[in-house]
Amino acid sequence: MAKASKLSEQLGQPVAGNGLLDRRFFLQTGAALAGAATVAGAAHAESIGSASPSTMLKPGSGFTVYGVPSHWRDNIKRILVTNAPPAREVTGSSRTPLQMLEGTITPGGLHYVRIHNGVPDINPDQHQLLIHGMVKQPLEFSVESLMRYPMQTEIRFMECAGNSGGMNGPQPPQATAGDIHGLLSCSEWTGVKLSTLLDEAGLDKTATWILAEGADGAGMSRSVPVWKAMDDAMIALYQNGEPIRPEQGFPMRLLLPGFEGNTNVKWIRRLKVIDTPMYSRDETSRYTELLPDGKAREFMLQMEPKSVILKPSFGLSMQGPGYYEISGLAWSGLGRVRRVDISADGGKSWTEAALTAPILSKALTRFRLPWMWNGQPVVLMSRTTDEKGRVQQTHAEWSAQYAPRQNFHFSAIQSWAVAADGKVSNIYV
Amino acid sequence: MAKASKLSEQLGQPVAGNGLLDRRFFLQTGAALAGAATVAGAAHAESIGSASPSTMLKPGSGFTVYGVPSHWRDNIKRILVTNAPPAREVTGSSRTPLQMLEGTITPGGLHYVRIHNGVPDINPDQHQLLIHGMVKQPLEFSVESLMRYPMQTEIRFMECAGNSGGMNGPQPPQATAGDIHGLLSCSEWTGVKLSTLLDEAGLDKTATWILAEGADGAGMSRSVPVWKAMDDAMIALYQNGEPIRPEQGFPMRLLLPGFEGNTNVKWIRRLKVIDTPMYSRDETSRYTELLPDGKAREFMLQMEPKSVILKPSFGLSMQGPGYYEISGLAWSGLGRVRRVDISADGGKSWTEAALTAPILSKALTRFRLPWMWNGQPVVLMSRTTDEKGRVQQTHAEWSAQYAPRQNFHFSAIQSWAVAADGKVSNIYV
Repeated sequence: MAKASKLSEQLGQPVAGNGLLDRRFFLQTGAALAGAATVAGAAHAESIGSASPSTMLKPGSGFTVYGVPSHWRDNIKRILVTNAPPAREVTGSSRTPLQMLEGTITPGGLHYVRIHNGVPDINPDQHQLLIHGMVKQPLEFSVESLMRYPMQTEIRFMECAGNSGGMNGPQPPQATAGDIHGLLSCSEWTGVKLSTLLDEAGLDKTATWILAEGADGAGMSRSVPVWKAMDDAMIALYQNGEPIRPEQGFPMRLLLPGFEGNTNVKWIRRLKVIDTPMYSRDETSRYTELLPDGKAREFMLQMEPKSVILKPSFGLSMQGPGYYEISGLAWSGLGRVRRVDISADGGKSWTEAALTAPILSKALTRFRLPWMWNGQPVVLMSRTTDEKGRVQQTHAEWSAQYAPRQNFHFSAIQSWAVAADGKVSNIYV
Repeated sequence: MAKASKLSEQLGQPVAGNGLLDRRFFLQTGAALAGAATVAGAAHAESIGSASPSTMLKPGSGFTVYGVPSHWRDNIKRILVTNAPPAREVTGSSRTPLQMLEGTITPGGLHYVRIHNGVPDINPDQHQLLIHGMVKQPLEFSVESLMRYPMQTEIRFMECAGNSGGMNGPQPPQATAGDIHGLLSCSEWTGVKLSTLLDEAGLDKTATWILAEGADGAGMSRSVPVWKAMDDAMIALYQNGEPIRPEQGFPMRLLLPGFEGNTNVKWIRRLKVIDTPMYSRDETSRYTELLPDGKAREFMLQMEPKSVILKPSFGLSMQGPGYYEISGLAWSGLGRVRRVDISADGGKSWTEAALTAPILSKALTRFRLPWMWNGQPVVLMSRTTDEKGRVQQTHAEWSAQYAPRQNFHFSAIQSWAVAADGKVSNIYV
């Protein structure tokens, strides 16, 4: 505690309750944070510096054609959640372990996966994308032919409509951020603007919807508004620089930035232009919003502004009082994140977090805020405001709009309670 | 050719020699590009649409805890170049297959690797970063302690000083862009600003250099100017969201944005603050510039502006006359790319390419330009101008400054000759 007090003097006064510091905080020269171990004297440091660790005394391993993460971090893996018995795990989801990652890009190996009947093994040389229905000229596109079209590259998040569904239960789930909110990832996508292809086919002016169908064993089908298809939709061929992976739709997927995940149809084989929604199984049996009067609200396609604090969060305990950085992710399906506010006193007082540039539309944005924890119990919350002025609601506000079993599009504020012993738990506020 | 002529009418007049189109080009509605296959009639399209491919008739594969690329693309791998016999391949490099990738982020598995004595297997719980020498208080940092410090996230390129070295030979190498220029990658890096740690140790005001030493079997050591360490240097712990991989320095590396690759010391274990360069083996035997008078210019640390056209490039042949997109990468170690100019007539006329946003400092920038190839032989060139006003030189201008065997920091314009049959070869202009 003495250390924390001394640090407080060097770091300036808190700007909100329970030790939140100004986001423009810079360390003073000579300010000792909690982490470093001091070395007693230059001579001792010199002897440490000249003592070679064992890895310096022998050659290391050689080359590989495709690298992998360190075996020391093999606990960082996707979190598997399936509805079926293990022998038929082709329906369900695996989640991104958000709390073990940093920055904003999700490595391909850890991108969340939602499958309805497994990952198909598609020969790219035989795959075709058909555009038909209300068009002047039906067209087929092979992978090879799409490679000659003008391409675009965009960093975009992807979030399943069922993400954070556990937060609708009567008790807050005591689980990691990845378990709860990990149907969320972010990649750099490259492909052909869908409007380019629809222009070439010649859209009928009375068309309003497009049926998108995947070539998987579930025949995943969703209705997409024409306005979105002509706005920022893409037929994505590359993800994080390399060809899109099988679990993400190889050889191509529909990308609808900011729309709920499963409208971004993977293994896309067909776009049929129509003038009414198809009301497919995948947009009527699921992904709707159950209202108190028992009706289901359909086609709520844009993901609302949202955020989650990852450091600290459930499973990542605090290591005693002192300086910490609060860090997490914010996003909005409607555009850019404008600001993220943080509270350490359960919502009584708030201060603005620093956002990591570049702040991109419909991409994950990393926020950070310095914090001096005095060792007392606190409740941490983060709240996103996006460029449209939409603001995250509290859990209570959000829940009041829906029937108890409504399970989709949860976007309320996540609250973490930090106990005096540093343990973090999930609470509803 | 008839098709190409008709397209030309729809696409507007070329803005530079041999068919280069304006970067602001947009497809007209109904403009047919080279790629799509037309489908004869709506009924035939409907029958194609309703005929399910085999992948729709059965479940696909299930979940994995860490995903991998498609087996249909297992030809996309790092290009191995070693100086030693296969049995001792712990010295050399493997390169990124740039021409097979898109966008700007390099997936971790394909990041180039340069090793001098193999990849060490470091237990992160035993690793320490020592800061000593001309400081008030020597300090040691464990991985765990660094995790509590303020972090920053930045997308930055990494380029080996020896990249493109083959372009110094008397004949232009006939090899892919990755073979020639693939000691180049780009990642999102997250870590602790080095200035934060140096401030905590208390830098002696007369210090001018810092010796950075890695914990590998080569004891890789470089001298880094204090100005750079206090500017945008980072101790990187994460790469593309996940913990930095062994080949890139697990558990931590020094990141010096825009500086030649091997100053970004991997497996960093020690920073000794000094007042003169160390003149280590790795900065005197290599990475210098050999001048015509036989002297070697040392400490040329910032990578100059550079670019390479990847589509088309050696090994990626043109598929007959018609519309194409020229696409490639540009970068500068001095800051942002300001513009990239493209020539299709060997440098006689130029036009500006479109740059993909966000254009970030010391990061790869994707450029694109629409092109109507008429099937005649052409010479394609790209030329970067960065925000400091530095411009790429021609091969002849660049070579004239150095001795014939000078092998480092090649940054001249890459020229690709496209023959009438669509084959692409490397030429010096």
